This record gives sequence, structure tokens and C-alpha cells, in this order.
Amino acid sequence: MTDTTVDAGLETVLAERRGGVLVLTLNRPHRLNAWTNALEQRYFALLDEAEADPDVRAVVVTGAGRGFCAGADMDDLDVLTGSEEKGLPARAVPCHRPLQLRKPLIAAVNGAAAGLGFVQALYCDLRFATPTAKFTSAFTRRGLIAEYGSAWLLPRIVGHARATDLLLSARVVHGTEALEMGLVDRVVEPDALLDTTVAYAQDLADNCSPAAMAAVKAQLAHAATSTFAEAAGEADRRMVLSFEHPDFHEGVVSYQEKRPPAFAGLGPDRS
Amino acid sequence: MTDTTVDAGLETVLAERRGGVLVLTLNRPHRLNAWTNALEQRYFALLDEAEADPDVRAVVVTGAGRGFCAGADMDDLDVLTGSEEKGLPARAVPCHRPLQLRKPLIAAVNGAAAGLGFVQALYCDLRFATPTAKFTSAFTRRGLIAEYGSAWLLPRIVGHARATDLLLSARVVHGTEALEMGLVDRVVEPDALLDTTVAYAQDLADNCSPAAMAAVKAQLAHAATSTFAEAAGEADRRMVLSFEHPDFHEGVVSYQEKRPPAFAGLGPDRS
Amino acid sequence: MTDTTVDAGLETVLAERRGGVLVLTLNRPHRLNAWTNALEQRYFALLDEAEADPDVRAVVVTGAGRGFCAGADMDDLDVLTGSEEKGLPARAVPCHRPLQLRKPLIAAVNGAAAGLGFVQALYCDLRFATPTAKFTSAFTRRGLIAEYGSAWLLPRIVGHARATDLLLSARVVHGTEALEMGLVDRVVEPDALLDTTVAYAQDLADNCSPAAMAAVKAQLAHAATSTFAEAAGEADRRMVLSFEHPDFHEGVVSYQEKRPPAFAGLGPDRS
Repeated sequence: MTDTTVDAGLETVLAERRGGVLVLTLNRPHRLNAWTNALEQRYFALLDEAEADPDVRAVVVTGAGRGFCAGADMDDLDVLTGSEEKGLPARAVPCHRPLQLRKPLIAAVNGAAAGLGFVQALYCDLRFATPTAKFTSAFTRRGLIAEYGSAWLLPRIVGHARATDLLLSARVVHGTEALEMGLVDRVVEPDALLDTTVAYAQDLADNCSPAAMAAVKAQLAHAATSTFAEAAGEADRRMVLSFEHPDFHEGVVSYQEKRPPAFAGLGPDRS
Repeated sequence: MTDTTVDAGLETVLAERRGGVLVLTLNRPHRLNAWTNALEQRYFALLDEAEADPDVRAVVVTGAGRGFCAGADMDDLDVLTGSEEKGLPARAVPCHRPLQLRKPLIAAVNGAAAGLGFVQALYCDLRFATPTAKFTSAFTRRGLIAEYGSAWLLPRIVGHARATDLLLSARVVHGTEALEMGLVDRVVEPDALLDTTVAYAQDLADNCSPAAMAAVKAQLAHAATSTFAEAAGEADRRMVLSFEHPDFHEGVVSYQEKRPPAFAGLGPDRS
Repeated sequence: MTDTTVDAGLETVLAERRGGVLVLTLNRPHRLNAWTNALEQRYFALLDEAEADPDVRAVVVTGAGRGFCAGADMDDLDVLTGSEEKGLPARAVPCHRPLQLRKPLIAAVNGAAAGLGFVQALYCDLRFATPTAKFTSAFTRRGLIAEYGSAWLLPRIVGHARATDLLLSARVVHGTEALEMGLVDRVVEPDALLDTTVAYAQDLADNCSPAAMAAVKAQLAHAATSTFAEAAGEADRRMVLSFEHPDFHEGVVSYQEKRPPAFAGLGPDRS
């Protein structure tokens, strides 16, 4: 039994282009966009397409209706079967596939982000949220551990003590407190949330080199567990390459000419 | 000469149970609860007991009187003898024993936390404090270095620059500034500090799986110096185990039945 | 062509002693103190002198005129030649030489800190800034990557998400927002900025052991990529040494006598 039964005829994730920004909307509003295998497969497939499409320069992910993502859908029989029989849901692609996107990925958290929905928000580069959006790991209150690398990501975003608070207690924090913690990067009123998030992403799409942004994301991932000397060496190596890249010339010339830069998009190969 | 001479007849640490929470009170108020070998031995012995007692689900530590802990007591002859003759106080148990507690440990910092008292506050999972509680490493102003792993813990709690500020200058920060830095997690007026801290701990005791909280603490400790891939692998391994643990079933069923969960306590063995 | 041509007769960095504090002023105000090879060589030479001079106990760096440092000066032909012909500016000393100073180095950021100027601000232990001082990496908007270890330093100062925001977007943040992020440690009105920064440094010079501060800086650098056990072991090793150091005795005695300590300065050798 697949969860097409659950969501007959529904597109579990909607995709819409706004300029250089791809907006993805988790679309199971009758379930607060709870995660199913079908939703995951479609979300990750859309990220693969975004990766390969030079016209997509940044991605925004949000939720339809009242929630962002309420976590794993316990009514998705694939999920339950997976957990009961094999211990873990079967995945062709790791759950943290979004972390590996070479392009900026910004969450517009419009409502509850709980459990796996909380983790998926952490997998985004940045989080914009409404003042009342709810964040909770939920894990320890269900007898569960810090799933999917959340114990690694959260302390690096909010510091060790705040991460301990959130992961030990699994308590709910709203957007406003989440901003103070650094869990959220901007708080925006609900009716402006998506537009504000897309505007931030569109600025990246219009003014920042896609190749340079991909390099920055790779550098940040590398530097998280490297020494300073290793990170500085990696920066020197990439800096030499960047001097030879057409985006450096275009970046300097467009700046001198006071016009927007015309950087090349990033396509399927990792050039 | 032992410091029973110093504190004749005194219980250097008081212990009191409030529901599932054990409240420990450093109890040398005539010395702002300055640290002695006797106090350390009793504090660590009480943590050992808390570890082994399934009815203790969280621990709160505070200070009697005006201070939390003013640091190593220079009048404790054992301390001075240890430092003069052997370089370091003799310890059967490492000074950071509190870091290894499997159960949540919350500090209710009611006054000065200085030197080793500052470090002991860092060894707790979270810190609640009064607005005027004083935090200071004190070290560089006494010609001392960043003792007992504080140079590792503090940057991970407040970030590298704030940690550098506090450890280079050894200046005093009060509860309110400490909250902004993330050094403190909640600021509470003095007459409500202990009750608020215990209420937080009691929520953990009542609603969060002790086994899951122990896993979260171990995961956070592991993830601090692991790669993301290692942390995600560890999470997957523990997630499989958690699905088979009775607390997962109880966590889901109690949630569906809208009643408090009845999780098992954690006893002496690490099952 | 050397950039003495560019700045004929100019001291590219000014040096002034105020008590135990050395104030260095980047001094190319006609170019917002943009970085040249000559400026770098003089800045680093002055840091070498500060390192070796026991009377210098802390260093403050600021900018002349409206800016702090606008980044690499594109009119400095040495810089362009270096980048075009060999990929990287030729350096006898690594660009992060300031990170290795054994003495506290505080930035008084009086205006724009962009590109390499942003990175040099990160190389300081702390940053004091005016409310309107501008911070921007500038990199991705010029087609450039996160240069000179900024991808390592910035997440450790402001957390991973805020660092991603700043390095992906290369947007400008002002002093006030930078303070909220932890990128800046104090915000001070322009006419009080330098005096306030020097006063902080003078407190370190007057009251904190130079040997202990050097140890703290080395410990923080070590702890950034060590395990807790390694950092605690390093602290124990250094603590034994500090007990035998005259600064420990002086620190305790001066405290008991309620007088300022008379700690020895740090000279050329690393004793």
C-alpha cells in the first residue's frame, strides 16, 4: 500500500517559479503537511531538478495552510511498516538530501515545524518565520532520541545550551523566541512571510554569483569540522580558482559600472 | 587536616526531593559556598546516587545564602596542600563528573558563580539565574589560565568572541547580560528562581522519556566533535533502538490518549 | 611599481601608545583604508613589535577617517599583479598573522569593514563598533568565495545560520544588528568608540596577567578543534604551570591586599 491512497490525486509538493527563485510548498494541509514517503520523494526530486536547472538560483520551502510540517505522518502505512519491520524507513536518498543542495535553500516557516518537520527546517540554510510559528523537536516526549543529525546541527545554530534545552525538553518555541536564539533568522508577519522570504532569495539570485554561493556552502560544511589551517588552505585553493572564473571579472566590472551583475547559472555538472 | 575542621558538623551539600526532581544545595553560606574537597566529594556522591535512583529524573543545583559558589576555598588546607605539593588537587573522580550525568542537571544560580563555581555552572546542562547573579571566571586576574575545560565549553555555549571576552578579561557579567549572551537560559527574580527551575525540571521528569533524555545528552556530547555524517549515523543507530523501546510506544499512545506518559525511570545500569 | 607610489610619504599604519595599550590606526583615509601590500607589511611588523615589547599588554586597531578598511585596494598594482600572475598575493607572513598574536587584539570598527577588511576585523579577539559601522564580506557579489578562513571563523562567532546569511548574501549589517548577532561585542557612539575600546584594553593591561591571557588565547585556539577531554587535559597541564608562575602568587596577594596586581609583561620569548 502506497500513500497515494492517503493523498489520492494530490500533488504532495507544489512548485512555482518566481524569477530566479523556486518556491516549493509542502502540500498536505489536511495533515499539517505531515511527512510521507511520497512527499519526501517528490520534495527531493524537485530539489534534484532545482540543482540541475541553471535558471533556478535559490529555493524557498514553505507549507500550505496552517502548518509548515507536523513531522512523520503516523497514518502513512509505508512509514509505519518501515519502522516496524526494518527499523528505519527505506530511503534511496538520505533524509538530509536538502543539506547537500549547492543552491541557497530558505525555509518560510508559516506554522508548526515539529519532529521531522523541525529537522527539515534545520536542513535549510536559513529560516524565516512568523511570530507564532511553532518549533519543537517533539522527540523526548514520544520516547524518541534526537533524530537525523539534529544533535549535530542545532548546537551549531543556537549554541550548546539552547540546543540542550530544546532537545532535552522538546518544548515548543515560537518564532519570536526562536529569533532571539538564532534558530530563526527573520520574523515576519504571516501575510508578508512568503514575499519577504522570496525577496531575500531573489536578491541572492540577482546579485550573488551562483558558483561563489556553492563554494561558500561547501566551505561552511567543510569548516564545521576542519581546523582553521585546513579551512584557510581550502579558501586559498578556491580563491585562486575564483580569480580565473568569469564571475570574478563580471562581479568587479558590474560593480564599477554600477549595474547588476550577469552571473552564469549553475547547471547539472559541478563546474 | 581535613576540612571537616573547617565546616564542623555541616552538611556541605543538602539534598531534597521534590517529585521526580532532586534539589542539591551547596551549603557553606558563610563562605559563599566556596568549593572544598569535602563539598566536592559529597556533591559527586549525591550525583552518583541520583544516577542510580530511578525515581530521580532531573537534578537542580543551587547555593545556600547569597552566593552560588565563590570558587575554590583558599582556606581549605587540602586544596592548598594539593596545589602546592602535587600541582593539582588529588581527585578520585574528575572535576567534570557533572558533565557525565545521564540525567538533566540544571543550575539555579542565585548569586556569585566565580572561578571553579563558574566552571561548575558551565558543567550543568542549563543555567537559570537571577538578574543580579554574578558570573566571572576570575582566572586571569589571579594569574590563572582557563581551568577545567572552560576554554572548550564556553565558546560552544556563547560563541567564540564572547567566550574570549569573558576568559581574557575575567570580568563580571550579571544574569541579565548573561542571558543575552546565551550563558544563562532564563532570568528569574530571586524569590521565584528555585521554584521556576524546579518546575522546568519537573516538566522533564513528568513528560520526557528518561532513556531518550540520556540518549540526547550522549548524542550532544558525541556530536560536539564528530562530523555530521557520524552524528547522523549515530542517530540512525539510536533511532532503531528507540523504536523497540517501550517508551516509544508509551509516548505515542499517551499522546493519542491525551494523558501524561508513564515512562520508566533510569536505574544503575545503562540499559 | 610598488604602492609607495600610491601613498607617497604616508605612514600606512599609525602607532601610538596609551599606557599599556598600543593603538594602531589603518591610515589610508582617502581610500577608506583599503588594504595594500605596504599596509599589510607595516601592520604585521607593528604586531611583531607589540609581541616582543613587554610594555605592550594589549593592542587596539582602528581606521583613520570614515572607514575601518574597505578591503583589498584594487588600485594597488602589487595586489592586482599578484592575483593575475600567481593567483594569490605573495606573502612572507600568512594573512591571519593577527590571529596568532599572544596579546589581546581589539578592533574599534569606526566605519566600513568590507572584504579583507571584514576578515581582518574577524581576526581580532573582539570587535567594538559604532551603531552605523558597516560589516560585509562582499565576496559573493564580486564572484568571490569566503576568503582567508572566514568560513571557519564566522560560524564560531555568530553561529552557523547567521554566518551562512552573511557569507551567502554578502549583505551589509550595521553595528547594531552585528551586536545582536554576536559579530560585535559592544556598540559605542562614534565620539566615544576609541576611548571605550582603549579603556577595555587598558583594564586587561592593568589587571590581567599577560602570561595568563596568552595561555587563554592558546587554549581557545586549541579547544576549537579538540575534544573536551583534550582541552581539559591541556588545562590541567597549564594549571600546574600557572601555580608555579609568579603571577599566581601576585594575583592572590594583590587581591588579598586590595591593590592592583603587578604582573610581568610578555617579552620576545615565549616563557
